[in-house]
Amino acid sequence: MKLTLVGAGPGDPELITLKGLNALKNAKVVLFDALIHPDLLLHCPDDCVKIHVGKRFGKHSSAQELINEMIVEYANRYGEVVRLKGGDSFVFGRGYEEMEYAAQHGITTDIIPGISSSYAVPALNGIPLTSRGISESFWVVTGTTKSHALSKDVHLAARSSATVVILMGMHKLGEIVEIYQQIGKADMPIAIIQNGSLPEQKMVLGKISNILPLVQIEELSSPAIIVIGKAAVLSETLEHIASNCDMH
Amino acid sequence: MKLTLVGAGPGDPELITLKGLNALKNAKVVLFDALIHPDLLLHCPDDCVKIHVGKRFGKHSSAQELINEMIVEYANRYGEVVRLKGGDSFVFGRGYEEMEYAAQHGITTDIIPGISSSYAVPALNGIPLTSRGISESFWVVTGTTKSHALSKDVHLAARSSATVVILMGMHKLGEIVEIYQQIGKADMPIAIIQNGSLPEQKMVLGKISNILPLVQIEELSSPAIIVIGKAAVLSETLEHIASNCDMH
Repeated sequence: MKLTLVGAGPGDPELITLKGLNALKNAKVVLFDALIHPDLLLHCPDDCVKIHVGKRFGKHSSAQELINEMIVEYANRYGEVVRLKGGDSFVFGRGYEEMEYAAQHGITTDIIPGISSSYAVPALNGIPLTSRGISESFWVVTGTTKSHALSKDVHLAARSSATVVILMGMHKLGEIVEIYQQIGKADMPIAIIQNGSLPEQKMVLGKISNILPLVQIEELSSPAIIVIGKAAVLSETLEHIASNCDMH
Repeated sequence: MKLTLVGAGPGDPELITLKGLNALKNAKVVLFDALIHPDLLLHCPDDCVKIHVGKRFGKHSSAQELINEMIVEYANRYGEVVRLKGGDSFVFGRGYEEMEYAAQHGITTDIIPGISSSYAVPALNGIPLTSRGISESFWVVTGTTKSHALSKDVHLAARSSATVVILMGMHKLGEIVEIYQQIGKADMPIAIIQNGSLPEQKMVLGKISNILPLVQIEELSSPAIIVIGKAAVLSETLEHIASNCDMH
């Protein structure tokens, strides 16, 4: 019996891998998340069983347990299950938990990585998380931990020279801004990108000191990616260069 | 005139995205790196000009400048250039520098993200960089900075609770081990993976205190990915579960 964990990428259905696409083309059962682009499911065979497991159970604390049970149930019934998850299954994706549960039930797991929004969504907007002379590292943190508090790592990350990426952190933005202000980094550039890689994407570029009103004006909401660091301003630099050139 | 920056992924030629594949299928010119899997180039049209720009100029400091110039030269001659790079172009990939240089010469850039080895290679080996209750964040650092020194971020990263991933750091492994030992983290799990995602992959799992001799015994060398943190040991945990199950 086999579980195939497939990362679907950040949203754009063409950002799935060839290997992930092939898994969908041969799938008997697909258990897919809420944020999966509907076009991806068109690759599945006609008789494939496609089950939405995202919002089905709401924010119920046992949602993950129910998904785990469904993986085992369908693997037993069909011999194999494809689990299609947004981004990458192992970057805040709980893929390890699903793999562990499957292993406990005698099911082996194939892992097909997906493009993680953490670096790809900034990149698609001209923001490199690393760039020679500007940032030598990047730190990806979740805004939502098991205890629902902002990860303590954010405090340390704010003091570092890394480009800091915070996923699932929009409801903690006030707290994040305060952490940076308290250590004298009110001028640090910050970019927030909602619906990255999709036509309906929205991006706001600002500084720690003015990002809260900017987010209100632009009506940004969850889920969005927060990028903090000197590299965040690079997309603007590039636009400046481009507008001074003889384009096209 | 257009430059298309395509991330090829960690090595396995099926880990390129659909969008990246389509760029190759329609390419007039492809400038590709040394670590690109040769199968990827088979997707290009017969009359496509394929140029290896990786080791061509050796470790010459001006290698990047020459690549930049080639991008502009070929974009001017053919109207468009595909730049195929290992992993993702923006994760220590110098994609931003190429985009910036192109912009200065009136060339617009399309960005097609690639799977970054930083998280995908650990994932393929059962190591999640984040996992509830074990690690709430991950920090990706380069071992090789502009000044050829180990990034100072490694010192801070070692003190954090993040899973630390060090790319291009094998020649600094002794120094990295020392940093962890000095802060009393000699028992911290560490995994080193060479040729990740390819059939010839090698992985070594150990602790800070014994990783140097293990690397010698297993004859690991560059390029390899170094993963340090409690999550690094999870792949062993899973094997333990699996071997206690009635598999297949």
